[in-house]
Amino acid sequence: MITNQLVKNILDTKLEDIPENVKQHGQKSFLNWLGVAIGAAHHPSVDIVLGLKEELKWAEDVSILGRKEKSDLLTATLINGMSSHIFDFDDTHLDTIHHPSGPVAPVVLALGEKYDVDPDKLLLAFILGCEAELRISNAVYPSHYDLGWHITSTAGVFGSAIAAGVIFGLDEDQLSQALGIAGTQASGLREVFGTMTKPFHPGKAAQNGLLAAMLAKKGFTSSKTVLEAKRGFANVLAPEHQLESVNINWGKQWELLKNSFKPYACGIVLHPSIDACVKLREKSSVDKIERIEIKVNPYVLELTGKKEPKTGLEGKFSIYHSASVGFLYGEAGEDQYSDEVVNSEEVLSLRNKIYPQVDETFTEDEALAKLVLKDGQTFEYEVKHATGSIDNPMSDEALQTKFKRVTAPIISETKANTLIDKIYNWTEINSVSELLSHTK
Amino acid sequence: MITNQLVKNILDTKLEDIPENVKQHGQKSFLNWLGVAIGAAHHPSVDIVLGLKEELKWAEDVSILGRKEKSDLLTATLINGMSSHIFDFDDTHLDTIHHPSGPVAPVVLALGEKYDVDPDKLLLAFILGCEAELRISNAVYPSHYDLGWHITSTAGVFGSAIAAGVIFGLDEDQLSQALGIAGTQASGLREVFGTMTKPFHPGKAAQNGLLAAMLAKKGFTSSKTVLEAKRGFANVLAPEHQLESVNINWGKQWELLKNSFKPYACGIVLHPSIDACVKLREKSSVDKIERIEIKVNPYVLELTGKKEPKTGLEGKFSIYHSASVGFLYGEAGEDQYSDEVVNSEEVLSLRNKIYPQVDETFTEDEALAKLVLKDGQTFEYEVKHATGSIDNPMSDEALQTKFKRVTAPIISETKANTLIDKIYNWTEINSVSELLSHTK
Repeated sequence: MITNQLVKNILDTKLEDIPENVKQHGQKSFLNWLGVAIGAAHHPSVDIVLGLKEELKWAEDVSILGRKEKSDLLTATLINGMSSHIFDFDDTHLDTIHHPSGPVAPVVLALGEKYDVDPDKLLLAFILGCEAELRISNAVYPSHYDLGWHITSTAGVFGSAIAAGVIFGLDEDQLSQALGIAGTQASGLREVFGTMTKPFHPGKAAQNGLLAAMLAKKGFTSSKTVLEAKRGFANVLAPEHQLESVNINWGKQWELLKNSFKPYACGIVLHPSIDACVKLREKSSVDKIERIEIKVNPYVLELTGKKEPKTGLEGKFSIYHSASVGFLYGEAGEDQYSDEVVNSEEVLSLRNKIYPQVDETFTEDEALAKLVLKDGQTFEYEVKHATGSIDNPMSDEALQTKFKRVTAPIISETKANTLIDKIYNWTEINSVSELLSHTK
Repeated sequence: MITNQLVKNILDTKLEDIPENVKQHGQKSFLNWLGVAIGAAHHPSVDIVLGLKEELKWAEDVSILGRKEKSDLLTATLINGMSSHIFDFDDTHLDTIHHPSGPVAPVVLALGEKYDVDPDKLLLAFILGCEAELRISNAVYPSHYDLGWHITSTAGVFGSAIAAGVIFGLDEDQLSQALGIAGTQASGLREVFGTMTKPFHPGKAAQNGLLAAMLAKKGFTSSKTVLEAKRGFANVLAPEHQLESVNINWGKQWELLKNSFKPYACGIVLHPSIDACVKLREKSSVDKIERIEIKVNPYVLELTGKKEPKTGLEGKFSIYHSASVGFLYGEAGEDQYSDEVVNSEEVLSLRNKIYPQVDETFTEDEALAKLVLKDGQTFEYEVKHATGSIDNPMSDEALQTKFKRVTAPIISETKANTLIDKIYNWTEINSVSELLSHTK
């Protein structure tokens, strides 16, 4: 009875049961999520979805981050979930490559605004939603991910339903049904990585999970054993799984504490390589380079092996591009993933000199880069734990700087500072509506 | 390049290329679909979804079948697709247990109404959508279904996207992208069978596929090889597949011709058993029965093995209930799947005397029933091809009677006759709006 026990665990957990460091990490996760969602608010893919209003005529009810437009609840969760993943700059649970906030935070925000929900309840819903989806991810990783599922949306739909369920105050039966309705909508193929449809996934998971909770609240029926049933989520979507881990040490160990924040606007698996190239740039000017060899974990080439990216978005799936900008600019923010930079001559010329090599013994936050100069000199730099990993996390200062930098094209620094203050001091949030007034 | 070839096949097929018998079978499929959708329009699950309007405030834009209410495009496709599967009385492609109209027809109807689309184009879109999804189902059946996927929604989302794409006039690139956005939303677990969430599946597939085509039309990017890619639909959702069958003999053989219509309001696998019990009721009164043994295909117990159904909906997943009503009433329409009948004393007493036995050699439209009386007499009845199967299809008259019977609680017989006339004589449809005026 894995599903039932999870539901009981969720309903038994109050905000006062959650340790202070977990709450703080939840607040940081939310801040990081909010920043990248605001920052991407004017991406063409967001414009496309907003353009559907002409045909769908939705109500102007709740806020779209970073935009003047509003939409109905379900559309807002789709768009805000999507924009937060566009830069590939959102939070990552490294053990499962799951981005937990994407499917959960949009639901918390939209319901918080529409129903003027007490901020304490929102923090509880956010943390429980994230914790549950991460535990489900743990239970099916890696076979589920290796098969080709985008775990952020497939497991994320449960997090979204749980967050909404907690806010709605669903009872044990209703929340179980909600998980059934959510689980049967679990979807998202890794095949679409590198296109607009990747960030669409967490948005759709947010939307589907919210819909599940809304239906369950009104008495819609479903399976109450969706996680463990013979033809349920784990058996159908994961060749191997360890479902008992969903509930083990609930309330004692927190997966959310393993959620990490990225300094670079690309997949976390690229971070150690970029770190190394940022360091190696001190050793030589670019014109003297013969090649740069980088030993990496196998996932790096599997996920980010694009040799000739044509767009900024494709650049995020290219170790060749990412290592090049690390060396050339000393950073890899959203600016380094523009179409212009991806097609610039200096990048094109350097990326042909990047030679990644898979090493099975390397972890995902590890890399060893070797700079070979034309004159024969070599320099090595080893990254044991990439910046943004659990063992080498971003500092509060770095996180706040990231927030300000990524939101700068959309909101003033004053607003950014206000948002940082409010989210770091969650109890001082008066209402979500007031918070949202600083996001556009 | 399976996806690309499918897209080319779709775009190369004009209405005049489609044989007359295929068009007629398409019209019958549409009629059968429309009837069961109208008939279920006031089911509690429809009321629940319509109740979301309070929170979602959708526009009153297009029609909900059998209801006075209207909604936005996406909600209408969800509801109409759902209601058509509530009675489990919709069409079935027996080779794959796929119900092709459910995900496709709602899209055709909603777009037809909103944009006043030429009925010829709608018939083309409907047939191509159904044909494509059935071919995709063929390619992944049975491993995909056996694993636990509800093939109607997982493959159906492609049919929905294609129907919308044809109506929108998408070009090759756009339609390919639409299939990527659709395929990544493929979902639906068999675990939820027997609950309101089963009929939710074709509705959601209709909605997701339509959304995919709307996004692709506006330039949203995705994978253009979603069917065959390493981490695409077939490899991720089907342990075994024969993808080349998606395109083989396109335009020469039509899977849609294998679509069948059910005389009984339950899964097609129950039909031979009900046929046999309807026949055996001539042999004895119910009080003399010792037991009824029924040999069936293995899927029958897998899908409909519920021994003690409590609700009408659960009754549809019970050979014990279904065989009992076949014997007691000589039919198994929606009336025989009410909560009252499922809990009636005469049914409860007979269903304990039903003994299904799996026989691996039996096909899905085959059954052998043996009636054993208390006095030792026995009678056997063998069904080689159940009513509603390809080899024993419902007659036009029976199909029309079914349409009138199933819609009788919602619309007048005059309206039902008008709808039958119009759909049998498709070219006489003036506009979808006019057609829809007879559905409520």
